[in-house]
Amino acid sequence: MGSACGAPRAAFRTSRNSLIKFCNSCGASVTHRVPEGDTLHRAVCDACGAIQYENPKVVVGCIPVKGDRILLCKRAIEPRYGLWTLPAGFMENGETLAEGAMREAMEEAHAQVEMDELYAVFSVPHISQVHMMFRARLVNDDFRAGLESLEVKLVTAEEIPWHELAFTVVRRTLEHFLEDRARGHFVPHFDEIRAPVR
Amino acid sequence: MGSACGAPRAAFRTSRNSLIKFCNSCGASVTHRVPEGDTLHRAVCDACGAIQYENPKVVVGCIPVKGDRILLCKRAIEPRYGLWTLPAGFMENGETLAEGAMREAMEEAHAQVEMDELYAVFSVPHISQVHMMFRARLVNDDFRAGLESLEVKLVTAEEIPWHELAFTVVRRTLEHFLEDRARGHFVPHFDEIRAPVR
Repeated sequence: MGSACGAPRAAFRTSRNSLIKFCNSCGASVTHRVPEGDTLHRAVCDACGAIQYENPKVVVGCIPVKGDRILLCKRAIEPRYGLWTLPAGFMENGETLAEGAMREAMEEAHAQVEMDELYAVFSVPHISQVHMMFRARLVNDDFRAGLESLEVKLVTAEEIPWHELAFTVVRRTLEHFLEDRARGHFVPHFDEIRAPVR
Repeated sequence: MGSACGAPRAAFRTSRNSLIKFCNSCGASVTHRVPEGDTLHRAVCDACGAIQYENPKVVVGCIPVKGDRILLCKRAIEPRYGLWTLPAGFMENGETLAEGAMREAMEEAHAQVEMDELYAVFSVPHISQVHMMFRARLVNDDFRAGLESLEVKLVTAEEIPWHELAFTVVRRTLEHFLEDRARGHFVPHFDEIRAPVR
């Protein structure tokens, strides 16, 4: 990585572009300003003193594998309706990363999986997300489309629909996985995905 | 990891114990219920339809190293006022993991660091946090206590105040680091920290 310290602060998005208008503790209007002792704009309630912080969200998922095949899900929801993805979604309060990845495999593909290592971690700063993908093994063949999937299927490397993948994270995770598998050695991958320049 | 799939859902904390009382979009009262198409309780606004999701927060930090010494910070804030920690804090919107870890080193210790690998990842489900610690190199000796630190110093392995460390994450990260350094080979560590049984 080796990036220099003191990254420019101006590029960070703050509560200036927040959608928060009211205090969720007392219902009064909030103001967006830098609270005392802080360095970033926050949604501050001058009535009750509460501060609503907005922080990045974690997306957890996995690469469910059976033999030489990988389980993919065709999305039944926006964004990227009809495109293919690995089972993944927002981590919930009270769960571990592995529990979240298992829950998502169950919800999206009714897939029972056993988790292996945390395999790929992606910072996606332009949408304030961190994606964490595990390697995983399908326990049985009893999988089927969940509510958020149109179709679920096992594919070989040759059958991966590269031009119909839903997200850059999915493409990069699959690329890392296939390269590592080909050389017979899996190592964790840490990466950043920046917004395309328009 | 190899944990079985289908972890019990009842253990997950939901918005049932949320502090959210009002919609932060329109200011109306919220109800806590499972929205259509969802599986968990959320803070739902029946007036405008907005849903306030509560998700785990990411804590980013690093192990700043100079030669054989490690930079530690004595906390000037609660919790754990007066105890020692590695520079770390909540990740902010719009930044990468590495940028967040650099920002925290600057805020807490005015320390200029260059990031190496993501080194340790901890799920801490009872407080709905994920901690991500990098290995890092101090660029110079120009560090000093930031607003959130009483004191900042470089310590050797023998000087680490093991009984005055602020958090389990800090202790485990330092243990992993020293073990790996002793055998001359650093590998990423993925771990879970559960609430102590009382």
